[in-house]
Order: sequence, then structure tokens, then C-alpha cells
Amino acid sequence: MVVIKGIQRILIEDIVRQGLLEDLGRGGDLTTDAIVDPGAQFSGRIVARQAGRLAGGGIAALAFELMDASVQIVLTRVDGAELEPGATLLTVEGPARAILGAERTALNFLGRLSGIATLTARYVEAVAGTGAGIVCTRKTTPGLRTLEKYAVRCGGGSNHRFGLDDAVLIKDNHLAVAGSIENAVALVRQNIGHTPKVELEVDTLFQLEQALTVGVDIVLLDNMEPETLRRAVEMVGGRAITEASGGITLETAAEVAATGVDFLSVGALAHSAPCLDLGLDGE
Amino acid sequence: MVVIKGIQRILIEDIVRQGLLEDLGRGGDLTTDAIVDPGAQFSGRIVARQAGRLAGGGIAALAFELMDASVQIVLTRVDGAELEPGATLLTVEGPARAILGAERTALNFLGRLSGIATLTARYVEAVAGTGAGIVCTRKTTPGLRTLEKYAVRCGGGSNHRFGLDDAVLIKDNHLAVAGSIENAVALVRQNIGHTPKVELEVDTLFQLEQALTVGVDIVLLDNMEPETLRRAVEMVGGRAITEASGGITLETAAEVAATGVDFLSVGALAHSAPCLDLGLDGE
Amino acid sequence: MVVIKGIQRILIEDIVRQGLLEDLGRGGDLTTDAIVDPGAQFSGRIVARQAGRLAGGGIAALAFELMDASVQIVLTRVDGAELEPGATLLTVEGPARAILGAERTALNFLGRLSGIATLTARYVEAVAGTGAGIVCTRKTTPGLRTLEKYAVRCGGGSNHRFGLDDAVLIKDNHLAVAGSIENAVALVRQNIGHTPKVELEVDTLFQLEQALTVGVDIVLLDNMEPETLRRAVEMVGGRAITEASGGITLETAAEVAATGVDFLSVGALAHSAPCLDLGLDGE
Amino acid sequence: MVVIKGIQRILIEDIVRQGLLEDLGRGGDLTTDAIVDPGAQFSGRIVARQAGRLAGGGIAALAFELMDASVQIVLTRVDGAELEPGATLLTVEGPARAILGAERTALNFLGRLSGIATLTARYVEAVAGTGAGIVCTRKTTPGLRTLEKYAVRCGGGSNHRFGLDDAVLIKDNHLAVAGSIENAVALVRQNIGHTPKVELEVDTLFQLEQALTVGVDIVLLDNMEPETLRRAVEMVGGRAITEASGGITLETAAEVAATGVDFLSVGALAHSAPCLDLGLDGE
Amino acid sequence: MVVIKGIQRILIEDIVRQGLLEDLGRGGDLTTDAIVDPGAQFSGRIVARQAGRLAGGGIAALAFELMDASVQIVLTRVDGAELEPGATLLTVEGPARAILGAERTALNFLGRLSGIATLTARYVEAVAGTGAGIVCTRKTTPGLRTLEKYAVRCGGGSNHRFGLDDAVLIKDNHLAVAGSIENAVALVRQNIGHTPKVELEVDTLFQLEQALTVGVDIVLLDNMEPETLRRAVEMVGGRAITEASGGITLETAAEVAATGVDFLSVGALAHSAPCLDLGLDGE
Amino acid sequence: MVVIKGIQRILIEDIVRQGLLEDLGRGGDLTTDAIVDPGAQFSGRIVARQAGRLAGGGIAALAFELMDASVQIVLTRVDGAELEPGATLLTVEGPARAILGAERTALNFLGRLSGIATLTARYVEAVAGTGAGIVCTRKTTPGLRTLEKYAVRCGGGSNHRFGLDDAVLIKDNHLAVAGSIENAVALVRQNIGHTPKVELEVDTLFQLEQALTVGVDIVLLDNMEPETLRRAVEMVGGRAITEASGGITLETAAEVAATGVDFLSVGALAHSAPCLDLGLDGE
Repeated sequence: MVVIKGIQRILIEDIVRQGLLEDLGRGGDLTTDAIVDPGAQFSGRIVARQAGRLAGGGIAALAFELMDASVQIVLTRVDGAELEPGATLLTVEGPARAILGAERTALNFLGRLSGIATLTARYVEAVAGTGAGIVCTRKTTPGLRTLEKYAVRCGGGSNHRFGLDDAVLIKDNHLAVAGSIENAVALVRQNIGHTPKVELEVDTLFQLEQALTVGVDIVLLDNMEPETLRRAVEMVGGRAITEASGGITLETAAEVAATGVDFLSVGALAHSAPCLDLGLDGE
Repeated sequence: MVVIKGIQRILIEDIVRQGLLEDLGRGGDLTTDAIVDPGAQFSGRIVARQAGRLAGGGIAALAFELMDASVQIVLTRVDGAELEPGATLLTVEGPARAILGAERTALNFLGRLSGIATLTARYVEAVAGTGAGIVCTRKTTPGLRTLEKYAVRCGGGSNHRFGLDDAVLIKDNHLAVAGSIENAVALVRQNIGHTPKVELEVDTLFQLEQALTVGVDIVLLDNMEPETLRRAVEMVGGRAITEASGGITLETAAEVAATGVDFLSVGALAHSAPCLDLGLDGE
Repeated sequence: MVVIKGIQRILIEDIVRQGLLEDLGRGGDLTTDAIVDPGAQFSGRIVARQAGRLAGGGIAALAFELMDASVQIVLTRVDGAELEPGATLLTVEGPARAILGAERTALNFLGRLSGIATLTARYVEAVAGTGAGIVCTRKTTPGLRTLEKYAVRCGGGSNHRFGLDDAVLIKDNHLAVAGSIENAVALVRQNIGHTPKVELEVDTLFQLEQALTVGVDIVLLDNMEPETLRRAVEMVGGRAITEASGGITLETAAEVAATGVDFLSVGALAHSAPCLDLGLDGE
Repeated sequence: MVVIKGIQRILIEDIVRQGLLEDLGRGGDLTTDAIVDPGAQFSGRIVARQAGRLAGGGIAALAFELMDASVQIVLTRVDGAELEPGATLLTVEGPARAILGAERTALNFLGRLSGIATLTARYVEAVAGTGAGIVCTRKTTPGLRTLEKYAVRCGGGSNHRFGLDDAVLIKDNHLAVAGSIENAVALVRQNIGHTPKVELEVDTLFQLEQALTVGVDIVLLDNMEPETLRRAVEMVGGRAITEASGGITLETAAEVAATGVDFLSVGALAHSAPCLDLGLDGE
Repeated sequence: MVVIKGIQRILIEDIVRQGLLEDLGRGGDLTTDAIVDPGAQFSGRIVARQAGRLAGGGIAALAFELMDASVQIVLTRVDGAELEPGATLLTVEGPARAILGAERTALNFLGRLSGIATLTARYVEAVAGTGAGIVCTRKTTPGLRTLEKYAVRCGGGSNHRFGLDDAVLIKDNHLAVAGSIENAVALVRQNIGHTPKVELEVDTLFQLEQALTVGVDIVLLDNMEPETLRRAVEMVGGRAITEASGGITLETAAEVAATGVDFLSVGALAHSAPCLDLGLDGE
Repeated sequence: MVVIKGIQRILIEDIVRQGLLEDLGRGGDLTTDAIVDPGAQFSGRIVARQAGRLAGGGIAALAFELMDASVQIVLTRVDGAELEPGATLLTVEGPARAILGAERTALNFLGRLSGIATLTARYVEAVAGTGAGIVCTRKTTPGLRTLEKYAVRCGGGSNHRFGLDDAVLIKDNHLAVAGSIENAVALVRQNIGHTPKVELEVDTLFQLEQALTVGVDIVLLDNMEPETLRRAVEMVGGRAITEASGGITLETAAEVAATGVDFLSVGALAHSAPCLDLGLDGE
């Protein structure tokens, strides 16, 4: 049984394998190996213990499968589905040693990714009807960025750049070195290829003015009050994509979105989402 | 300048290196490379933007050092220190390209680990004076267990087992397979070496009675009300170490600790701690 | 002595190390170890045996340095410099075993990268004065893309996307699946974040018309005759970046560039550049 | 479907996997994932766009298979076959996402290896009838030596040593250190085991005389004119294997071979062969 | 055919793969590839050439399987079985290239692990009837600890700690730093979690007295004469597990065991067991 | 302080690092970290507890150095030196945590390699004066072949091939597939390059006759009685290198060597040498 395959599997198989090895150490699962016969079978289901948005069902399945390819898994909910408390999201059946040995690893991935999807979904709901999108940042757990960005998409958000090399984002420290917005953007145009977009972080409407003069693809409007944001959006007038960032919470998201910005950038999606509580119940 | 060395460095250097590579991708830091001259210098400080407990100062330093060994870092606070908002925890000086390229990776480690230390410290404070300790679980981020367990120690907590192979923990699924507590413990005694401790999870005082009869090193008292916990501690009478687990929150921790248990087991320490907000300020 | 450091070193150290290990096998350098005393010193220079453009001086230096940190290297020419036959590009001095053991690996990197830079420079010269740029493709040697893209920049070219994940390029096979340009672009807009640019490959002016209607950031004008290219550039009228591709040679490059396209895409830069002939001469 | 297995697979699977990951980065194939439904199927063929010698059919197949084991591949030509323009060398059928995502990687391997096989075959043809063989050198692409040596065999050539540890080759720099041919060979005999052959590079007939006196297994006759080569072969009189090297081209190969040497050593086979032009056509 | 799966496979697959690659080098199996047709089949059996205890049958099978998943293996004896000279322990059938290429690697694992199991079994027999167990140490081959500890279990022994992190063992060098047993144990109690056991090495009955006063889980009675050991066991009186170590041989083991110690610690099990002589016979 | 560098370091650094990590697990050295202050210093010496031949001094030093580059090591004996009981072979001084944490790993490498060198030296002494050499086989510990082959050289032996790809050795199973010696050798000549030597295993003088007729570089005379070996050496008459193998022990080595064979092949050197007993003594 192969649940995840193709591109996704090539990208994440090693991460899941390392997760298993980290738990098994040098000696394997002492408890299970001592108590459970090699031939013993186990049958169970992973159940949500609280409401939330599912992300990582296939990854949990992969953890079991890497342990033993004969484990049978059925994903009863798809990633992106809303889970009610008590909902079964996957059933698992097969060699008990493999299932009990991979249980914690599978749940650790699933809880973290579903936690991110759940928080993202709450933000998306908060801005519903405004036309604004919710995007993540690079504030992700080291080693898990690909997975956490995926979880944001499961929650209905979309992804900002994946790393330092797939888009340009000029921030205050860069401006300090370059001396001016004009100079910074000119250096970028001169030194990088034509395929990445160029984004500029601005703190004031004065800086925004300069950004629009030299021309950039995206402006990051950092730490602006709603009223200032509204004026910024007007000034841009469609000449660039607009993102608001800085201290946006579930409480303030709707107000920020109402200013007309295209996207709200929320670092908390990946770095401060509590895990969704899930468990493996035997039958 | 070498900030982390010896055993710690051998254990974590690869994790930090992978964190950097994840951000640099194939093309490196497009923005910095375009704008910042190879010879340009940068000088700055990492500052806490909210109060919390520090963990990971040396890891942040290692991220900069791996990027360029000539970066000079001074740790102005040690791991385990309480940080007030605005506190500077390290200063960094050296090649601007290296510092700006490693900034996000350094902050991602620092924010996550300090977040864990901060939450742990809050639990430790909550049970102060009771003699009970706070311990973490295996509900950690895949790939970062060693670091997250370290952060728990920075917060004043202590570590439960690091994996499936350094202690035995017999849970309900194992009991279901073994048929009885007596049988499960006998199988463990027969099949594993004499160096790991044996812990047993019990849900009721009846199970506890059996556990004490066969003899185990640690009992995990799962999901018991304070009154039941108190009776359990009495029954054990020092014959085993006692741990309480299941839904313990900052609000309930003091009451649980007051029952006389030796340890409170709190999975949330690692899996649901929000990141501590930190930033790199140029000078 | 550290020649390459910072981001570049993090990105390529493992590639160079693997190159050395591939040559040393399990038994090391039998010949050198048998003949050369561990304390023997060697002093030499790497010399161009034909004219060309230099790329990879630092990588050659890194190969020697990884073998023995006490080797002293001076780069007498910088990457991007034009080399005349007989030109010395680096001098090396230190333990003879290390230098002779790394010689072939250093030269293999240097010859390949300088070969790419040289061919790129010839294309850049061919279009001089037209305003058009020369860009590479993803037709690179497996495992060496980061280095080969760097060599293209040393030759005066610029880089197209580094992989499948840093820009969108919709090709004929995608159009076949999507059914229409309109549908393909709509799916992309809906499913990806706002930071990557969207490029579309078109074979005809009719397709170009559709591309301009739905709006894309870059159009790849594939296999068009100069006259058609000229009309395409006119139709675009600055609404998108234009790239010409398909069978462009050193002979035809000037004519293609004269059509007004922004970039010429040349896969041969990386995949068919002959190595530049270089050698290590002892003194 | 498993196309490559046994020893070959063990040796190359990681190289192919790294090639795929290099292209997929952190975000995967943005274009394909956005446009192509997970369940969509694709059927196509890889076709030669110019004449050449095939090498790497199985490797291309492995790239598709690693992406998704359910892809069905039929190799319609075997490695070593001569391809006419338009010839189909493999057909591929299966999940469209996997096939489109692996396309470039598969073609990059195939184009490079077939390019090497093609150039080798041209050299082999050039010396047909002389009894001389064509051999490669260690001037290979870092990381791909095993594959490139294989491609040389597909072209009808044979392999010189794979690295510094499977045969001894004493060159001028070694002689400079050892002081004399006699001393160099004596040191080798004394310090290495009896299983590797010993080869010596000579530039003059005088050096050859010395080499024959001390006795070596192979002599490398470097940069000698045809007439000198002829005399060298006579002097050797079957007491050692003879190799000619240095600036041998397709134009001069026949003349060199006619001197009676056993092998012509051609570094260009691996380092300067242009890629063979191939493409994936949908059906 | 999958012989080893689940936890065991996750833990050892990479070790076996590296063993194969170490033998195949860059060029593969020259002899077999030259002589044996890709389609040729081979059928044979692995036979013990001397008496001994079997360990590693599944690992040998895995070596063949990793080479080619179509190889058919039947394990005719299970790990832990006593082998008489000439006994067949596994039969293998499938592609000849894969079987001959993996032969040496499979036998190297099997011979070493069975050698350890055999020596362990001799020690276990020597102490039969005394109630004492035989345990191994950390004196294992770098990289093979998990496997060698497993072989000890196949021989009827049991495992001491797997590494520095799963149990505490305070030795003389630690005591020298700490100043006293009391201080050393106090530091350990204060700095580590509650799950690992604490063991203390003592050389004299005076030290043992102190150890019992502060309380530890295990005492390692190092280099004591049988008479002293007997008194030590009496002094402990069940308050700690007792281990004897230091120069125990097959000749002295029974006498040491007769003193009443719980375990005999024998480093030689892993580090000085001669390989068991085994061979692959074709049919 | 860098004790091992150049080619040797590139080849073995990863093996030593893995050895350390295997011991440190996820939690590091619990005992040392708890008892020893980060700033504490340690000074000691590694001492031979029995007589033997040293191999691996630099590798032990590397283990300490990888743990902490500030550890100071002095090698007081060189590899290949004969050690008397009590001899100090290296002194070590520096951070106590690093030294105690690496102690076991350093000793494990040193004990195993010195054990091999010691056994080899005994064989070399046994055949002294006969002109015969002692060679090892591929029966080495998986993962440590490079190091074990080095240890054989430290003991005065020399190395047979390092793997399946640096020399041809035709054995009985190959002959069974090929049908005849003539056919097997012909296939080898036709399919492999000209740089590796060809060796053939023969069991009888009749087979030897055939081997000499077709011509090979080395003959392996397997399991022959001394008298038969003597006749075999005569038959060969210098036309090939001769090796005797099969059940050669320290007791029979001199008699075998006296037959005039060039080499005695002894698998036991690597696979059955007991570790040399060594220890780290604090000062």
C-alpha cells in the first residue's frame, strides 16, 4: 500500500525516516519488542480529540509504511477537511510492532501540521469576504519548511517565498547597506536574473512613494495602522501587490483585511500554532 | 570564535547546517548577494521583543559561525536566563552577507527553543514549593528532539526518556497485547537488559495495586483526579517514582503538584509552546 | 587560509568533498602515497593552456584546502577574468601529498566551469550592443546546477530559474493537460502563491495573443523565425518580458538579438560547453 | 516495474535521487502541481533529435521510477545502440505529475551520457581496423564518474583507472619528487600491494628506456609525434602495454593508432562531449 | 521477498547498504560483470564450516535483497540456533550477478555476528546453573553497535547500556573530578532526569560502602578477587544490582559467577570474538 | 592541533564522527555532563595493557579533536611501533568533557586496529627470512575496510584488493558459470579495461596448468598441501605471482612460506584478531 508517492514522496521520505530513527535510537522500541510477538497484529484508528483542520494524513501513513510496507492504511478524511472532535481520520491495520513503534512519530507530524492548518483556517475565516489572502513567512521549524508550507495551504492560506533564493525581499537592513531604495532596487535588477519577483519592505508612506517610483513587484507594508494601510493601498493603485505585516492577530485580521491589502502576512501560522490533539485508539 | 563545542557541537552541527541549507536553497540569498558587497561588515544585536526564558543562544551563534567562521559573537545572556522585553542576548559583528544570510535560521532556532523554555519556566513557577518536578514527553518536533529536550532543561524542567530505547514505558496498547500487567512486566524483565528503568502507565488504583505487586521503577498515573492522585501517592509509599499526566495545564498544575506526586508530565512544553518573539537589530 | 566562505561555502563544500572522495576511493592515492614523503612540499601554479573565461578559482582552492588546511593558495585572477593562453590563475604551495591528491578534482571543476563561462562569454559578445541578455536553462549536469549557474554569471550571462519550484513555466505538455492557455494560467493563479513569476511558452503568434490576454509575466517565444520574433516583440509591447529559445547558435545569436527580445535562452551553455584546458605545473 | 537493479542500482540510485531533488527544491514542481490533477495520466516517448549512440536508457527509466513506482517504461533501444534522428528509445506511461516532474532530470542524464557514448563511438570508428582501443581518463564530471565511465563502454571504448586507488600512474610531478624513474618505481614496488598494475608516463624515448629497464606494466607515451610513437612501440616489444596520450583529436586518431600503440587515451570523451539532443514527446 | 522488516530494517538497512557500496567501489564487481550474463541464475546455500551459534541470518538475506529484490532466500535456521559443522543456514536463489556481488558482504556480517553469538554462548554455558547473566559492554566495533548487541542476545547474553545517554555509569575518572562518590552521585541526581538508572564503578569494599550509603541502582565491582566479590555481594544485600568486571575469561567465569553476582560484564564478547567460518556453496 | 590531515583525514573523518555519534546518542554523555563542569580540564595518557603493535594513534587523536579542537594530543609512539605492556602511546590534555566523552570511541578504534596490526606482525615474524609476504583479504568489518587494510600495513603485511572493482579474482563460482578457465579469462579480457590485474583461484595443478596456458597475472593456490604448493610454484616458474590461501595459521605459516610462494593470504588478520587491550589513565 503506497499512500504518498510521486513528487511529495521524494521530497519528504527522508524527513519521515529521520523522525522514526530519532525515536528508535540504537536499541529500537524496547517495550514493544519485549512484549509484542513479531507475528502479532494490531488494528486501530487515529482520532481527533478536538476540532480542527486536517493536514498530514499521508505523512502519518508514510511513517507506518516506512516501518513496514505490509501495514494497511485507509485515509478516511482528506487533508484540508474540517475535523469534529472524535472524528476518525485514518484506520491502520497490520503488524503490531511496526504500528506501535511508529505511533508517536506519526502523531507528532500529524499534530503539528494539523495545528498549523487549523490556525490558518481561523485566519482565513476571519478575513472571509474581504478578498484578502493569508500568507505564511519563513518563520518555520528548521527542517520542516516544506511540510509546514503545505499545512498552510491545507488551511486555506497561501505561501510566501520558500527561501532566500526564490524571490527577493529587500528589508531595512539591506536598505541600510545600500543607502537608498533606489540604489537597492537598482543593484537587484543588475545582479539577479529576470525570473524572481522583487519585493520591498516599507515602513512609511514616504518610502512607499520611492518604491513606486523605482517600481517593484510587491510591497510589504510593515507595522502600519489600518488608516495608513488604506492610504498605502490607494497610493499603490494596482501597480504592485500589497502585503500587510506586523503583529496581526486573529482579533485584528478583519480590520487589516478591510483596508484593501491583497495579503496579510502571519508568521504565527507556523511558529506559534499549538498542536492539534490526536490519538491512536486500538480496537 | 567557537561558541559551542565538544559534545553539544557534535550532536547539533548537522541540524543547524541543514537549517541554513533549507533557507539558502540552490541559489543562495538573492537579495543580500545582489545588494551587499562581499567585503561589507555588519554589526547588530539580537533582542527579545517580549519577556521570556532564554534557550539556544549558542545555537544561534553556531548558525552565524557555520556561515562564516570570522563572525564575532558575544553571548550577553546565558541559556536559562530570564529576559525582559528589550533585553539584548547576543551581539554579532562581521561579514554582512554571512550575518544577513543566517539571520532567519538563527532566529527560528532561538525563538522556538526560548518559547519552550519560557513555557516550561511558567510550569515550574506554578508548582514552586511543592517539591514536584516538571518533565517533558516524546511529543517533540521531528528532527529537533535533542534541542527541545535541552530547552526544557533551560526552563528548569527535566527530561523524560529521549526515545523508545532508553527506558521502558508500558502503555494500555501493550497491556492489551500482553493480557495482564503481570505478564507484560514479566516479558519485559525477561527480554531486556538490566540497565533501563521500567515504567508502567496506570489509569486506576486497581491497576496501580497490581503494578506495585509485580514491582516497577516508575508509575505513570494517567488522567486521575487530584483526590485519586493523592491516594495513589499514598499507596505507592515510596516504592516507585510517581508521575502524573493527562491534560495538565498552567491553571491545574499547582493542584496536581499538591497531591505529592514526584513529577508532572506536560507534553505541551515542546509541542504547543508559542515562539518567543526576538529580532536582529542593526546598529 | 580560507578562500571561499560564507554562503558559497555552505552551498558547495559537500559537492567538492564528494568529488575528492570519488577519486580517492577506499585506498587513497596509491602513487603519491608510495612515492611522496608525508613531509614533502610542493609548489606550483594552475595555468590556462588555451584562451577562455575563468570560473571556479575559489572552488579549485577549496579542493586543496579541504585536503589540507595548511595549503597556501593565491588566486592571481578573479572569476570572470579573461585568460590568455599561458596565464597563471592560481598558485598553490604546501604539502605535496595533499596537492597532488586533489589536483585532478580541482582541475575537473575548474575546467568544466571555465568552459561554461567561456562559451557564455562568446554568446554575450555575439549580442553585444543589442541590449539582449543571455540566459541559461535547467539543462545542467545533475548535482552541479548551483555551480554551473554561477559559471554562467561569470561569463556575463544571467540565470533563468534554478528549479521547478522558484518560477512557473507552462509548456506544451501542461497546455495539453489543461486544455487551453486560459485554463492553465487560471489554475496557476489559483494554486500557487503570489511570489513566483509566471512564464508561458508559446510557439505561435496566435498563442501569444492568448497569453497577453490572460496576462503572464514572461513569454518564452519558442522556435520562431527572426521575422516572427520581431512581430512578437511588437505585439507584447512591454507588457511581458520576452525570451527567445530553440536552436540558437553562436552564428544566429546576433540576428535573434536584433529582433528586440529581452533574452536569448541557450541550453548549450551548461550542457555542451567543452572544458577549458588547464593544467597544474610544478615549479 | 524495475528497469535497473542489482549492482548498477545500488551504485547509482542515490545519484539519480539527488538529481531529482536538485530540481524539485523545497516547493516541488509548481507548474505541474498547479495545472495537472493528481489522477491525470500521461503517455509519451523519448526521441532522439539527432543521430548518436545511446547510453543511460535505464537511468532515465530509474528517474521516472523513483518519482513513482507505478510509471510504466519500455526501453525500445538498448544502451550501446546507434540512434537515427527521430528514433524512439523509450516509452513512458503513468501519472502525469511524476512524469513531467522527472522529465528534465531524466533527459539531463540521458543527453550527457549519450553524448559521451556518441563521441566515443566516433573515435572507435576512426581507429577501426588498427587494433588499437580507445580509453577514457579521470577527467570526468565530479560526482558522475561511474556513469560517465559506463557511457564510454556503451560507445565501444574501454575504461582507464576509476580513481587514484585502483592503479598506479607515475607522472612527471611524482618523478620530480622521487628524483628518478628507478627510484619512483622502487618506492611503488615497496609500498603498495601486488594487485594493482603500475603505469609510468614517459615523454621521451630516453625515459622509456629507463622504464623498460626497471619494468612496469603499462607505459603512457605522452605528447609524442607519430614517428616517435612508432619507435616507442618497437622498443617496448610487447614487454608492456602501450598508451598514447596528449592532444589526440578525431582527425589525428587514425594516424596515432597506426603507430601500433595498444590504446589511445582521450580525455575529451567525458569532459568535452556535447550532449545528445533528446526530447520527451507526449502522445 | 522481505526477510527483515519493521523496526529492525529501519535501523540497519543503511549499514548493510554501506557495506555493499564499500565493496563495489566505483566500478562494481569487475569479475562477475565480465563473466556472468545479466540473465544468469544462481542457486546456493550458506553453510557453517565450523560449529557455532547463528546470528545475522536476516542481515545476510537483506544484503542479497538490497542488491536485487527478486533474489529468493529461505532461512533454514533461526538466529540463536546452534550450528553443527556443515549445517546449511540459508538457501539463496536468483540473479547470479546480484548473489555473487553481495556474497562477501553477506558473509562478513554473518561471520562477525555469529562469532559474537558463539563466544557469548560459551560464556553463558560456563555460568549455567549459577543464576548469573552475561552482559556486553560498549567495546563494540564503531558503526556496528546495534548489530553486535543483537548478536550478544542471540548467544543468550543480555545487553548493558547502548551508549553514553541511556544510563549513567560513574567511573574512576568521574570520581577524580567530582572529589567523592557522594558528590558525584549528588550531581547526577540533580542534573539528569528520573528515567535513567545510575551505576557506580567501585574498586574496593570501602568505596562500595559509600555507594550503598548514597544509594545507586547498580554497582560495578571492578577487578575484585572472588573472595572479595562474595563479600561485596553480601554487603549489597539486594539493595542494588551487582556486576563483576575486569579480566573475566571463559576459564574464570564459573568461579566469578559462583560468588553470587547478578551479572558478569565481558568486553571480549564484541571486541575479541573470532569470526565464525561460513561459506557460500553453489549447487 | 591537527594530527591527521590530507588524504587520510578526508577518507576517515566521517567514520570517526559516526563512531562518536553512535555513542552519544540523542542525549550526550549523561554521566560526564552531570558531574564534570564545562570548564574542567583533564590530562591523561593512553597506555597499552599488553604487548602489541600499534595502529590507529592518529585516529584516536582525531576522535578527541573532532569532539573539541582545543584538545592537545601528543603521539608518543608512531603507528607500526611495537608496544611493551605499560607503554604510553599518546598523551591527551584539554576540556574534560570532550576527552571523557570520546574516550570509548577512541579506544574502540585503537584496540581493534592495533589488534589487527599485532596479529599481522606475528604472521610476518613467522615467515621471516622466507621472502614471502603476508596479505589480507576482503573479510573485513563492514564499514571499516580502509582502516583495517591500513592496520595490516602497520603490522608489516601488505594489502590484497580493496574491493570488487580494483582487481579481478576469478573463483570457483565464476568458473562454474563460465564453463571453463579459458572461457572465463577470455570474457574478462574482453569486458574489462587494461588497468586491473587478473587473478585466478585454482584448487589443483591441473587447473593451474590451464591458467598458465591462457595467462593470468596472479594465481591463488587454494587449500593445497605444502608439497603440492612447492610443485605449483615450480610450474609457474615466475610467469605469475603466486598466493597461497586456505586455513593458514600461525603454526603452519612458516611451512607454507617455505614452499616458495610469493604471498600467504590470511583472512583472519582482519576478521579474527582480538582487540589489543588499552586504557586511558588520568594523571
